[in-house]
Amino acid sequence: MSVDADRREFLKAAALAGVGLGLAGCQTSGIGAGSGVSGGAIRSPYPGTGLFVAPPLERVRIGFVGVGNQGSSHVRNFLGIDGVDVVAICDVTPANLTRSQKAVVDAGLPRPTGYGDRGARDFERMIGEERLDLVFTATPWEWHAPVMLAALRAGVHAATEVPMAVNLEQCWELVETAEQAKRHCLMMENCCYDRPEMMIFNMMRQGLFGELLHAECGYLHDLRRLKLTDFYYDRWRVKHSIVRNGDLYPTHGIGPVAQWLDINRGNQFDHLVSMATKSRGLNLWAEREIGRDSPEARQAYALGDVVTTLIRTKAGQTIVITHDTDSPRPYSRNTLLQGTKGLAQKYPVQRVYIEGTSPNDRWEDLATYRERYDHPLWKGLDERAAGAGHGGMDYIEDYRLIQCLRQGAPMDFDVYDGAAWTAVIMMSEASIAQRSRSVDFPDFTRGAWKTRPPLGIINVEGARVG
Amino acid sequence: MSVDADRREFLKAAALAGVGLGLAGCQTSGIGAGSGVSGGAIRSPYPGTGLFVAPPLERVRIGFVGVGNQGSSHVRNFLGIDGVDVVAICDVTPANLTRSQKAVVDAGLPRPTGYGDRGARDFERMIGEERLDLVFTATPWEWHAPVMLAALRAGVHAATEVPMAVNLEQCWELVETAEQAKRHCLMMENCCYDRPEMMIFNMMRQGLFGELLHAECGYLHDLRRLKLTDFYYDRWRVKHSIVRNGDLYPTHGIGPVAQWLDINRGNQFDHLVSMATKSRGLNLWAEREIGRDSPEARQAYALGDVVTTLIRTKAGQTIVITHDTDSPRPYSRNTLLQGTKGLAQKYPVQRVYIEGTSPNDRWEDLATYRERYDHPLWKGLDERAAGAGHGGMDYIEDYRLIQCLRQGAPMDFDVYDGAAWTAVIMMSEASIAQRSRSVDFPDFTRGAWKTRPPLGIINVEGARVG
Repeated sequence: MSVDADRREFLKAAALAGVGLGLAGCQTSGIGAGSGVSGGAIRSPYPGTGLFVAPPLERVRIGFVGVGNQGSSHVRNFLGIDGVDVVAICDVTPANLTRSQKAVVDAGLPRPTGYGDRGARDFERMIGEERLDLVFTATPWEWHAPVMLAALRAGVHAATEVPMAVNLEQCWELVETAEQAKRHCLMMENCCYDRPEMMIFNMMRQGLFGELLHAECGYLHDLRRLKLTDFYYDRWRVKHSIVRNGDLYPTHGIGPVAQWLDINRGNQFDHLVSMATKSRGLNLWAEREIGRDSPEARQAYALGDVVTTLIRTKAGQTIVITHDTDSPRPYSRNTLLQGTKGLAQKYPVQRVYIEGTSPNDRWEDLATYRERYDHPLWKGLDERAAGAGHGGMDYIEDYRLIQCLRQGAPMDFDVYDGAAWTAVIMMSEASIAQRSRSVDFPDFTRGAWKTRPPLGIINVEGARVG
Repeated sequence: MSVDADRREFLKAAALAGVGLGLAGCQTSGIGAGSGVSGGAIRSPYPGTGLFVAPPLERVRIGFVGVGNQGSSHVRNFLGIDGVDVVAICDVTPANLTRSQKAVVDAGLPRPTGYGDRGARDFERMIGEERLDLVFTATPWEWHAPVMLAALRAGVHAATEVPMAVNLEQCWELVETAEQAKRHCLMMENCCYDRPEMMIFNMMRQGLFGELLHAECGYLHDLRRLKLTDFYYDRWRVKHSIVRNGDLYPTHGIGPVAQWLDINRGNQFDHLVSMATKSRGLNLWAEREIGRDSPEARQAYALGDVVTTLIRTKAGQTIVITHDTDSPRPYSRNTLLQGTKGLAQKYPVQRVYIEGTSPNDRWEDLATYRERYDHPLWKGLDERAAGAGHGGMDYIEDYRLIQCLRQGAPMDFDVYDGAAWTAVIMMSEASIAQRSRSVDFPDFTRGAWKTRPPLGIINVEGARVG
């Protein structure tokens, strides 16, 4: 596939490779409904920088779709952020809906209208009936794109839990629909806001690592029990392990790394190769924990236990991404950044080596650098984030979403980032299906990556300080 | 390239890809000289197991070629091992020759005959004139194969420092020449004998990790100063960085991993992909340390600073190999072994996680397992190895070489292992040269890998205990 492959060629090749889950019967067009975005007229989507901004909102009226594990956590976060009204919640599981409605009421706020009792597509009714500024979805993966497309087509900003989509067609459709609708469409990658990742970003911007060369990241999280019990609605997550072989969950790793490497902002993913081990973990776990003759033990799983992906960027850097959700091991995201002057690593312990500063050939504790290089957002939000999901990063993520909407500022990541980070999944599947073939990346920005400005260092007021 | 590509097809493809350094003008045939191997008649090279054994030697008469940094260390090791006579030493640098001759004399042993004063091929004269059992070479890389081929053709066992060769033709030539000559031909991969690697091997054999899935390894060693000063004879090492882009030094990592995964012993490397960053480290170092206008700073280097290689095995495992000799960072070989029951990791700290034994989601110190799982060779040789090169592993490596020769036992690694581990270099170069193309491995065993027995756990007497 050529680097310059246009969308149609790419999709054709992707379809031939059989990548992604089909969404047959999913109709997302013709939803109707009004604009929904409060505030004034739409500004130019590309005011010179190539970054999309929308008119500032005084308050943000949110409709939620999916308030299970992660969605309910976001609802709680928003209750602690100024200028947010949780006006509607949609969930097909009544207990989830009731729980999150109660959380809002318990905070002394009006009870959000409930949706979901009319089936999986009841979010369309919510979008049609409510006056919303933002639809936030934390459904199973395969509903992320349909929910966002419905919101965008109704003129409503859309945010989703990761990943943004389950196939490349959806990625392209989201990009084009967001552009046409002139609305934000973003994938909420919380790990971009984790304290060590943000501190490494800050250190990098201040030149400590020199010119960037190489990064490592991943998602190594033993999910065997969660996949093979009823933790996830309708056991949706393991269904992907049954039919797909690739890095199914790269964004927690590639999100922060893409920000460090200025992907879509002067740099771009170029090509990728991916390789998977055989699949053993789910079968062995099911045999031991459920029974040798259980359906779970007899099931064939397509997903290799360990999937490793290499990406090369246009600027000549490399990225290693690891995916392992089926092996016994401590949690890790394998975070590493190597530059010409040194490197930082987050797992198993946070450490750093800076040539000329660190003792020769010796690691230093990353904490040594915290007083000087802690990211301004963490310095300012530390106390407010305490107790929120995933060590506080989820709060900061939601805080920035609302701040950008209220200030009319560009998001820290946008539809092009969500599409590029999500595309790793399908490209990994395509590579593995063809004996680790080298696969070229689509350019969702269609050339705009060359001139889009680097992400800034933002303080708690949303001002750029670096 | 098909998996069943025969040698000729493979070489043709490799030649087209421009892999490896040519050795134009290197003539290794027609050296003449007698058998040289003391002891009785040659046994069958394949006594049922597919493992080569030679008649036991009462004493081992060694001729050294290259006694610079690493070669002189081996000479010192052999002075502390029973049954060894260092009878000849060849080195083109008189100071090296004299130093190692003196080391032998200082140990109260006869002065080895000196060679090397008649030029780079003077080792041929040494092999012709001396009665040797073993030629041991620690020359610059490009001389390893020519020296070993000369030894084998004279009927003398051959051992070399890593890597075994600088192109695939040499790998095949060594395999075929060793088979025809019925002599040992082995690449001395000292890291196979490092204590943590051997302990992990022992733990693996006792089932602690379950079924093996994935391994990581590499060579991350900041060699910028050594490459760009006169540490290496004639600055031979940096010359490879100038003209080659690939994992130039994989064997310290892949050697132990290949032993864990039974490569050439029931399992085999299947295919490989490799990816390199741009090259920055050597230029930046030269600019800073030598001068912006120095030849070293103005030189173009082909070698990417970080090279990452993925290998898939026939048994469905994956291996990640990292090569980085040009970046500022603490030393590492990135050693990791993941199985279905747990994993071990060596850098930056030695740690292990065993499902059901380790606290949930928590690493344990690998040392916790040492009393029970320390490899018998280390238990027995700990004191004797103390003070030898690279923390003692070089002594154990040399000890096992001599022990196998004196017992007429199969080596811990043989010509097929040396060829397969070395081939990673050239395959990595071929993959990188073609945008990370997937490259199939040659099978140097020509099918024998399917039936060759797994490597045993050997005690200090050379008996198999596991």
